[in-house]
Amino acid sequence: MLIVGEKINTSMKKIAQAVEEGDSAFIAGVAQQQVAAGADFVDVNAGTFVEKEVDYLPWLVETVQSTIDIPLCLDSPNSEALAKALQCHKGEPMVNSISLEEERFHSLLPVITSHACKVVALCMAQTGMPTTADDRVSVASELIERLTSAGIALEAIYVDPLVQPVAVDVGMGSAILQAISRIMKRFPGVNTICGLSNVSYGLPARRLVNRNFLTLAIAHGLSAAILDPTDKRLMGNLLAAQMLLGQDEYCSNFIEAYQSGSIEDD
Amino acid sequence: MLIVGEKINTSMKKIAQAVEEGDSAFIAGVAQQQVAAGADFVDVNAGTFVEKEVDYLPWLVETVQSTIDIPLCLDSPNSEALAKALQCHKGEPMVNSISLEEERFHSLLPVITSHACKVVALCMAQTGMPTTADDRVSVASELIERLTSAGIALEAIYVDPLVQPVAVDVGMGSAILQAISRIMKRFPGVNTICGLSNVSYGLPARRLVNRNFLTLAIAHGLSAAILDPTDKRLMGNLLAAQMLLGQDEYCSNFIEAYQSGSIEDD
Repeated sequence: MLIVGEKINTSMKKIAQAVEEGDSAFIAGVAQQQVAAGADFVDVNAGTFVEKEVDYLPWLVETVQSTIDIPLCLDSPNSEALAKALQCHKGEPMVNSISLEEERFHSLLPVITSHACKVVALCMAQTGMPTTADDRVSVASELIERLTSAGIALEAIYVDPLVQPVAVDVGMGSAILQAISRIMKRFPGVNTICGLSNVSYGLPARRLVNRNFLTLAIAHGLSAAILDPTDKRLMGNLLAAQMLLGQDEYCSNFIEAYQSGSIEDD
Repeated sequence: MLIVGEKINTSMKKIAQAVEEGDSAFIAGVAQQQVAAGADFVDVNAGTFVEKEVDYLPWLVETVQSTIDIPLCLDSPNSEALAKALQCHKGEPMVNSISLEEERFHSLLPVITSHACKVVALCMAQTGMPTTADDRVSVASELIERLTSAGIALEAIYVDPLVQPVAVDVGMGSAILQAISRIMKRFPGVNTICGLSNVSYGLPARRLVNRNFLTLAIAHGLSAAILDPTDKRLMGNLLAAQMLLGQDEYCSNFIEAYQSGSIEDD
């Protein structure tokens, strides 16, 4: 399970303020916390600053990589911002995300094929958002076909099934979970990734819903998640689910995380 | 999802004391709490009183059914205690449990075929406890064949895959979950049931592990669970899992449970 820490996103007020003020110490601190909590990648997103994103995203890359040793997830649909961020990134980043929307696909393809990187492929079609599992598998199949044809390795592709709220359509949770399972089976070697919080939009007890969605998604084969690794309850679910599914030899990851205080029960 | 409230069990000190003292008000209170929290059945178990079980089990049935209107799960391998408890039970109870152990099978079969009841069929063979999913499916198949041949309806059978600790064998969680899934698919109409706490034996943060096991078991098709319905976090997982799997139209069970305070988040 690859964990992408989601906390450096300018949609969060404190992050936006730190970016505007060039407060590199604050950003570095948030990055360090996430790595200490188990992040494999740290997401950087400056998408709320539409015009300045092209400067802020590379600044985030340099700021974060001056303090931590792991690769970043460059989170933007803006090809210019991504190209600049990729230029200053050390190591092999993840790019989040390309989709089947034609303009987005054609503007991002040259960027992601010109650098070694992992690619998040979002199940968003030109014709709109998917509803059913079939829709998602269909969009994923076309994305995988196009990306591998362009020379991207199957193992470098992280399909995002596009998580939508169950409060809007109660079949949505099942559609997403089935899509994850079917995509992983149809394309052995490919990865799946998603964020969690959209699923609970409009509901009470959102963190409870998100935690259970993570457990279910892991059971359906999810190989990466964009989440807050400092959330001890969420990480508790992640490690318990992996252990219960036989993915934690001697239960050692779970027991060590408990002993070190990085997960908690009641 | 059928919920069997597990709290009236003389392995718990306060229950044992109440049974010995004939404290029917205490027992009635525990039954009422469980029904208020959503129990469909209330389990009664006096198994720690080996010799007196034959008197205590019927007493528990009368005591509980004098205060609540739902059927009970008569939890004993003792045919004499079960026969007496069945005689005074109003409505259609669940009997927990028959198994493939020859002596147990032959002593309980006449009891469960002489009363209309649901039957828990424990995946325990004459040769010992099952290890793999294959073992469980094999024992379940023979139990189902024998019970239906004796006239018990498939829909009245609740197969218990026999939950064992992942701390002893890390493949155990997956074996149990796969067994649930395969039994439900192979015998359409049959039910599966289990307790949760054995899975976390020997681990820290046991309630966290149990909660996640419940979520995973529901995803694999579990149709009934023996649990503490007054555990708000556990019930939160149960309702969130059902909602995320598309089993809660308009999310109304989840939202109502949250609003009434019977589940909680952080």
